[in-house]
Amino acid sequence: MPERAVSDVDTLHAVLDAGLVAHVSVCDDEGQPFVLPVAYARWDDEVIFHGSTASRLFRGLAAGQPTCLTVTRLDGLVLARSAFESSMNYRSVMVLGSARQLDGDDKYEALRRVSDHLLPHRWDDIRPPSPKELAATLVLALSLTECSVKIREGGPEDPDEDMAIPTWAGHVPLIERFGEPVAADATAAAFPLPAYVRAWTR
Amino acid sequence: MPERAVSDVDTLHAVLDAGLVAHVSVCDDEGQPFVLPVAYARWDDEVIFHGSTASRLFRGLAAGQPTCLTVTRLDGLVLARSAFESSMNYRSVMVLGSARQLDGDDKYEALRRVSDHLLPHRWDDIRPPSPKELAATLVLALSLTECSVKIREGGPEDPDEDMAIPTWAGHVPLIERFGEPVAADATAAAFPLPAYVRAWTR
Repeated sequence: MPERAVSDVDTLHAVLDAGLVAHVSVCDDEGQPFVLPVAYARWDDEVIFHGSTASRLFRGLAAGQPTCLTVTRLDGLVLARSAFESSMNYRSVMVLGSARQLDGDDKYEALRRVSDHLLPHRWDDIRPPSPKELAATLVLALSLTECSVKIREGGPEDPDEDMAIPTWAGHVPLIERFGEPVAADATAAAFPLPAYVRAWTR
Repeated sequence: MPERAVSDVDTLHAVLDAGLVAHVSVCDDEGQPFVLPVAYARWDDEVIFHGSTASRLFRGLAAGQPTCLTVTRLDGLVLARSAFESSMNYRSVMVLGSARQLDGDDKYEALRRVSDHLLPHRWDDIRPPSPKELAATLVLALSLTECSVKIREGGPEDPDEDMAIPTWAGHVPLIERFGEPVAADATAAAFPLPAYVRAWTR
């Protein structure tokens, strides 16, 4: 089957490590859900992400509200011979549970890992968070204990009765890549572009 | 400001029209939220998406459960001189409300529009959904009345006191493009690749 649920840990980790953004669910006091895009990283058997301590929604998560964090990486379009079989290729992880708040060294290390996830080596070149900035940042960890992984790959699965439909069928890969870096200003442009920026692919 | 909330309708529509996948929140009976990736499209002042009638979660949405649907398009990495100012460029729309179920001609038209959103013109080449397939599909519409749009673009906004940090700073665009189409089988490969597949860019 082109779409399948996957249960091995290596695949779970690989999908989380390949994504750039997660979508996390938060409810307000009236039960209205919000789905927020967040930067994240995997840290061993947890997924970590951060928000602002000024955000009422993030404080709700820190208080242990049940949540779901989903990472979806789109891999392409599946062009079947029928509308019903047409689909998308993707890798997706859904993590369920309640987040715990990280503090102290763990909080700092989690922020470093989110930075490393987005762009390895960048952390070493920049100013780390100040005590004031740390205080303004809420860092949360969600265990991977309860999660599901779904992957769809390859071409369409047209039933025999659709094979005579006179059209091209197949799949079209979706490719994500980084474009040409843009220096912020003359001060930045005076430095060479770091090799880790050029080297970054995913 | 590089990150801004946007309130004009044209921008709202443009962000929704640029995305490929949405993440929608659903709660089960125990109050556990789930964040599901879905294909979607904008239809005038609503966003439409579909799921399986076999899905308990989707049936909860059809019953009018409060939900949130978020579309996030990542546009790149923002490499500031501090960890705190480092960020991502993105366009994001968050839609709040309760979905309504579409039936009859509206349901059919919504499915056509989701197909057109993913790949314009494809619908005309393929077999439309049969009555049985339609019965297995739940199509939902969520009004854009209550929504928010956030956009972050451009380079970092480093404060003056960070400008002496000796590193390159700027932003790196993230580009999504389609790769080389892969025919499903010899039958498909006997047809020319439709021009609308090659022409599709976003």
